[in-house]
Amino acid sequence: MPSTDLVFPSCAAHRRWLAAQAALPRGFRVGTAKFAFTPREAPKPSEMTLTLISLDAPTRDFAAVFTRNAFPGAPVVIGRERLQERELGAIIVNNKISNVCAPEGRAAAEAVCTRVGELLGLPASAVLPSSTGVIGWSLPVEEMLAALPSAKAALQADSILPAAQGIVTTDLYPKVRRHDFANGGSLVGVAKGAGMIEPNLATMLVYLLTDVAVPREALREMLRRVVEPSFNSISIDSDTSTSDTVAVVSSGRVACEDLGAFEEALRVVCCDLAEDVVRNGEGVRHVIRVAVTGASDAGQARSLGKAIINAPLFKCAVAGNDPNVGRLVQAIGKGAETASFGTGGVGAALMERLRLTMGGIEIFSDGVFQLDPQKEATLVAHLKQAELYESRLPADGIYRAGVDYPPHERCVEVGVDLGAGDRTATVLGGDLTHEYVSENADYRS
Amino acid sequence: MPSTDLVFPSCAAHRRWLAAQAALPRGFRVGTAKFAFTPREAPKPSEMTLTLISLDAPTRDFAAVFTRNAFPGAPVVIGRERLQERELGAIIVNNKISNVCAPEGRAAAEAVCTRVGELLGLPASAVLPSSTGVIGWSLPVEEMLAALPSAKAALQADSILPAAQGIVTTDLYPKVRRHDFANGGSLVGVAKGAGMIEPNLATMLVYLLTDVAVPREALREMLRRVVEPSFNSISIDSDTSTSDTVAVVSSGRVACEDLGAFEEALRVVCCDLAEDVVRNGEGVRHVIRVAVTGASDAGQARSLGKAIINAPLFKCAVAGNDPNVGRLVQAIGKGAETASFGTGGVGAALMERLRLTMGGIEIFSDGVFQLDPQKEATLVAHLKQAELYESRLPADGIYRAGVDYPPHERCVEVGVDLGAGDRTATVLGGDLTHEYVSENADYRS
Repeated sequence: MPSTDLVFPSCAAHRRWLAAQAALPRGFRVGTAKFAFTPREAPKPSEMTLTLISLDAPTRDFAAVFTRNAFPGAPVVIGRERLQERELGAIIVNNKISNVCAPEGRAAAEAVCTRVGELLGLPASAVLPSSTGVIGWSLPVEEMLAALPSAKAALQADSILPAAQGIVTTDLYPKVRRHDFANGGSLVGVAKGAGMIEPNLATMLVYLLTDVAVPREALREMLRRVVEPSFNSISIDSDTSTSDTVAVVSSGRVACEDLGAFEEALRVVCCDLAEDVVRNGEGVRHVIRVAVTGASDAGQARSLGKAIINAPLFKCAVAGNDPNVGRLVQAIGKGAETASFGTGGVGAALMERLRLTMGGIEIFSDGVFQLDPQKEATLVAHLKQAELYESRLPADGIYRAGVDYPPHERCVEVGVDLGAGDRTATVLGGDLTHEYVSENADYRS
Repeated sequence: MPSTDLVFPSCAAHRRWLAAQAALPRGFRVGTAKFAFTPREAPKPSEMTLTLISLDAPTRDFAAVFTRNAFPGAPVVIGRERLQERELGAIIVNNKISNVCAPEGRAAAEAVCTRVGELLGLPASAVLPSSTGVIGWSLPVEEMLAALPSAKAALQADSILPAAQGIVTTDLYPKVRRHDFANGGSLVGVAKGAGMIEPNLATMLVYLLTDVAVPREALREMLRRVVEPSFNSISIDSDTSTSDTVAVVSSGRVACEDLGAFEEALRVVCCDLAEDVVRNGEGVRHVIRVAVTGASDAGQARSLGKAIINAPLFKCAVAGNDPNVGRLVQAIGKGAETASFGTGGVGAALMERLRLTMGGIEIFSDGVFQLDPQKEATLVAHLKQAELYESRLPADGIYRAGVDYPPHERCVEVGVDLGAGDRTATVLGGDLTHEYVSENADYRS
């Protein structure tokens, strides 16, 4: 990460770029339908968008990975079963309600799949359902069934942008990434990330469509591999949604000339979408990229990187453009303990070998900090250039994002060299801001 | 937890209660000295307090446990060695600078111990050092040596309150708890917790003094046991300080009539101090108590409880007096995964057996939520009664605590029954508030 380092001078420029990314691969159609409804559990008017992705012909070649949360939503439970089915013909996504631990949740999801199947001439078992939104509430099944014909009528083969917009709840902007292959095939992905102003769980949904013919088993192995350096290497706030889903579907219209090149494209698209999800994370004003090098084990390297991007005190310091490197060392020391580097003697050996950088500047080596006032000023400047927008004191006490698109793709760059091997890992996270607290504490009651 | 449920009508009432708690056991003296200095790494005036705890005669009977962070401060490294020494005669604590990963940090701590020893007629090896404050900065050794005679001159045998006040940085109030035994012996403990307005690491330091004669090995075994349900069952923000220290020292002046009764008193004092630390945690407006029951393993129960009190989205919901129980289930589902309950089938079985309560009201059973608008109102009222103070929009954007003492000891009560055994665990944590972010992001740069 990242494959790009974009700077958008305006929201309009960002929109033009997104539209250019969004051309659909052959063999797919996308349509959405929006409707008003009243949730049973909280009787006030709300709005839901259904996003329908259909294949012109069902395919054997699809793959998906799901949340590891022990309490998955009904669509995730069904989705795991769909992996055993011979063919997939459509994906149906709703926002607003996640259908997790709701009474009769499974029957509700199956009813929606059945109706999609009827409309498209497919068995229900060829339809993959996804839901995101409030946990515990019930899907408005009748209203969803009534709206499905409109989603079908809206199907078009030009752009995935309606899906990118339809699956979000209150993400600030739609997220689309693509790769074009030399033989005319393409891969395009959309993500719904962690940006909600309702006090809900921030689910990640990712759909990747390609017309390149990659056989089912190869596709599944590739997806398992590429989620590790991408979606499994990010964390907004260490929480794990009950609905997280990443699916990739091939329509098989274009020959695959090189499986390795396809996997590399899939990896890059996934890493870029993962970075988009972090950059639009709840309240994120700084994206933090931690590159761990010199590890003896890649899993240990990633675990240590995650300990840093999940350390609240360090995240707060970054939010304040404060190069509080003591908190970085504390987070590494805690991460080293949980990543089973051992403590005591091993911790001391690790400390001696450790070399830390921020913005490329050495801040720790030979077991002690390497700090001076000039470095501190340089570090503050590094933090400021990576800020997405300035925090502003709101008149009503509710902090809100200062932009509705990311003006740049710069990160706070943290380097952690363990001096103990040649394994590496890169992880991405966000800072901890008033905007995060406002999004998650200030909107209800 | 807790042994008490105090309500303080005023700060003055709280101070009177503290003074009554603070009588020193026989054989101990406490003195402090405050002085101005200029840190080498950040040249602006600062102030440090030295807290000296001395025994009238050195004792063999002392115990201590330290942080598990892999990068402990120099005083922790020395403290671990002190456990091998034959006798302990004094404890010297400084605030402001934690002496972690600072050049020549060990020599600095040893120089302070040597001077304390000279003043009190002890070898340096009989002096336990502790430091809390900024990580990475160097101790002002010359100024500390010069101030030590004043700390010695201030030694008195009446009250531990000067120590409770001297070890804090910007905790809102001193923390003292005691137990009086029937035969005239006593146990008194002080804690410095997680409440700092400098952007530092929130170290926990706890010193427990008793005149009851408990042999060294018994004392050490007891301490290892009682830290589990007390200090190892709390979390403000999942970070692990590089300086955490809990020490217990006996002057041996009063016979111990019942080791079991002493251990129980130690457990209660430690649990109460642990709760005090949470209640004065950075930005904490609600203390959350999670009682996990019906577990097949106590460690698993505690791990699951910690997953809940460390889940940022749930913590934010509590801050907003928002009974967002979906986030509670998400946190349990994630905790169940990491606490190795397994996923998939095991997760489904767990979900069927799970019974959740908040404020005593059932909110989840039989695998689904049990919610209605009346329950929601009751839950909001439960959250509000546990609030320590109302959050107020500050004119300068920097949120501050609304009180300087805890007006009550009420908690947000969460019950998690796993229906799978007879093991239990209770953990305490705090909410995630604008006051936390302000304390950790808004004060520097």
